[in-house]
Amino acid sequence: MARIITLTTDFGLADEYVGVMKGVILARAPEAAVIDLSHAVDRQNIRQAAWLIRSAYRFFPDGTIHVVVVDPGVGSRRRLILLQADGHLFLAPDNGVLGLLMEPEYFQAAYEVQCERYYLTPVSTTFHGRDILAPVAAQLAAGLEPAAAGPVISRQTLIMLAKAAVKIDRGRGTITGEIIGWDHFGNLQTNIEAGSLNKLYGKDKATARVSVKGKTILGVQEAYDDKAPGEMLAVVGSRGFLEIAVNRGDAARFLAAVTGDAVTVDRSKT
Amino acid sequence: MARIITLTTDFGLADEYVGVMKGVILARAPEAAVIDLSHAVDRQNIRQAAWLIRSAYRFFPDGTIHVVVVDPGVGSRRRLILLQADGHLFLAPDNGVLGLLMEPEYFQAAYEVQCERYYLTPVSTTFHGRDILAPVAAQLAAGLEPAAAGPVISRQTLIMLAKAAVKIDRGRGTITGEIIGWDHFGNLQTNIEAGSLNKLYGKDKATARVSVKGKTILGVQEAYDDKAPGEMLAVVGSRGFLEIAVNRGDAARFLAAVTGDAVTVDRSKT
Amino acid sequence: MARIITLTTDFGLADEYVGVMKGVILARAPEAAVIDLSHAVDRQNIRQAAWLIRSAYRFFPDGTIHVVVVDPGVGSRRRLILLQADGHLFLAPDNGVLGLLMEPEYFQAAYEVQCERYYLTPVSTTFHGRDILAPVAAQLAAGLEPAAAGPVISRQTLIMLAKAAVKIDRGRGTITGEIIGWDHFGNLQTNIEAGSLNKLYGKDKATARVSVKGKTILGVQEAYDDKAPGEMLAVVGSRGFLEIAVNRGDAARFLAAVTGDAVTVDRSKT
Repeated sequence: MARIITLTTDFGLADEYVGVMKGVILARAPEAAVIDLSHAVDRQNIRQAAWLIRSAYRFFPDGTIHVVVVDPGVGSRRRLILLQADGHLFLAPDNGVLGLLMEPEYFQAAYEVQCERYYLTPVSTTFHGRDILAPVAAQLAAGLEPAAAGPVISRQTLIMLAKAAVKIDRGRGTITGEIIGWDHFGNLQTNIEAGSLNKLYGKDKATARVSVKGKTILGVQEAYDDKAPGEMLAVVGSRGFLEIAVNRGDAARFLAAVTGDAVTVDRSKT
Repeated sequence: MARIITLTTDFGLADEYVGVMKGVILARAPEAAVIDLSHAVDRQNIRQAAWLIRSAYRFFPDGTIHVVVVDPGVGSRRRLILLQADGHLFLAPDNGVLGLLMEPEYFQAAYEVQCERYYLTPVSTTFHGRDILAPVAAQLAAGLEPAAAGPVISRQTLIMLAKAAVKIDRGRGTITGEIIGWDHFGNLQTNIEAGSLNKLYGKDKATARVSVKGKTILGVQEAYDDKAPGEMLAVVGSRGFLEIAVNRGDAARFLAAVTGDAVTVDRSKT
Repeated sequence: MARIITLTTDFGLADEYVGVMKGVILARAPEAAVIDLSHAVDRQNIRQAAWLIRSAYRFFPDGTIHVVVVDPGVGSRRRLILLQADGHLFLAPDNGVLGLLMEPEYFQAAYEVQCERYYLTPVSTTFHGRDILAPVAAQLAAGLEPAAAGPVISRQTLIMLAKAAVKIDRGRGTITGEIIGWDHFGNLQTNIEAGSLNKLYGKDKATARVSVKGKTILGVQEAYDDKAPGEMLAVVGSRGFLEIAVNRGDAARFLAAVTGDAVTVDRSKT
């Protein structure tokens, strides 16, 4: 069966860079299906790409190969790695971009990519996505065993991603997290998981109060349309985390929020 | 044979949303070919998406499945529908986005999507494109009968799209329509069909006069290059409707035109 | 085996234009893999598209069909051509967009596209990419012989692209070229080939001095990270040409460079 390869980069779509990666892949694995996740990661924004791939991978079948190229250190001494996590394969620089998938509940194995026989020749010093990761992804799609990519790396030596801490006080019913980004609609993404909300508030989410940038939202709503157009609301977004939105509006612009702004959930007094 | 699924959304391409819809589809219909029509519909602009899908679908083979997700009411009580029209299948919210395909000459049947067994679990309240429409599209591509999607809906209860009226006076040879949008080149799209022009002017289109925003164009030209660079012209565009263009220029910017601006065709006096 | 068809246009991705070309192709060649190279060529910028396709094609397998639609003269008397070059097939208007592939070292044969039997009917005067090039590409993918596309054209009558001259003085060790564009990262692309650098400087590239816009860079570096973040550098970019970059920065913005700005390489005095 055809294997799926996904691509996540900060290359944009104006240049030929994404297209030539697909050419390299299809020349070696003609049956592979290559799917774009995003090529609009902010230039060299490792954290943004890390959240994106962590949110997206699980909608693909087990065994999918995910190539992530956000690589400010291309050509330098940083390693390229193949990570096996939660039944999927991930190819990327070892710079933290896969850091959210290295948690013990996901991690299975990691290898340093060193299978030069599959690389393009010559390997450039400026585009390892095309010259190394694309052909190796193609070989994996064509049946190469992960262990054949190179020597095993212990989890301890991999570059993790410092996760913004979420503070949970079950007694007082408070959760403190932060804004980690926003989407095309201006919906603000937080690092507060639906599971944390459920533990503290269960089905009684109407009693929660969400505060951000000096504004408060009473309750966690079910859908954008639970508030009137133009009103702020809080929902569990499609990534499974708390989101701040404005119904038919743009919360990121409305609040002038930036990454790192605090978000707190506590019990409404009323 | 592989079935084709097209995607039209207002999601943009920066987030993982389009990519994960493809993951959901390919996990269930690995042989499907998924084609992007546009993900740059203005946010929640139902009318723009309605014109786009109506213009695009007929270049695909019969039986193609078109998924259209412009859905300001996601999570609310609006229905999701499967429309059979002109030999194609369309999946979308029942909010008018398929309204231009419900005319009697296209309409074949409509069903309310209720086949929960195919949905992702749990279904989110914020992303029915991923959790409902994508897996149902995949099932249709894999051979599910349209009638198995849910109960029949009568055409009368579907949400139509109020079409901007085109007034035609055959005696005086005048047609009055309006600007409905513009493309990447700034070519202004109108709702005046080539057929209407042909009925009134036949092959004698040099006698027509097109007026918009206080400017007039003599004749309907055959191609952009029939006028000198920088000059305004009128042509039958690739959608089969009258377009206003500036050869090698940008008519939308030149005229500062907006959606709804009047366009009239009458007989030139000269 | 499935044939690959690549698409390069100035259409943008907001309109349905690219999607309907894929529909036309897949309706006629369901097994073809259609890959986007770029749809963000500046409107009607023939030179930019010419460099892009010349840089990208060689990463695809021999026999790939490349469709390039940057076509300010659509509907006028310009020819459409099928070019065989370096083992690949190229379909485009005869307006110079394939001009960099007509050098004797690449050129194999050219045909004027005249196989009307394969065109969409009716052929519009405004979208030959959809109505002529897409269906002909599909026929080629399905096995049509190139010579069946239309009559042979002699190389001498094809529209070439005036190449900005690169002046090389081997005695004095100087190369004078120019900026031809920049990529998403702001890396400035020049027309100075790696081969020219190698002939004059061999492995001794540390002695070269690169000058642009009144600034100089000592040496040609191996990778972006060879300079500190924020510093200018010169590298052989992934296209195989000299590039000017700023490590983790944007050289195009930093230098306010435009296409045509002079770039010189000479021997460092030190």
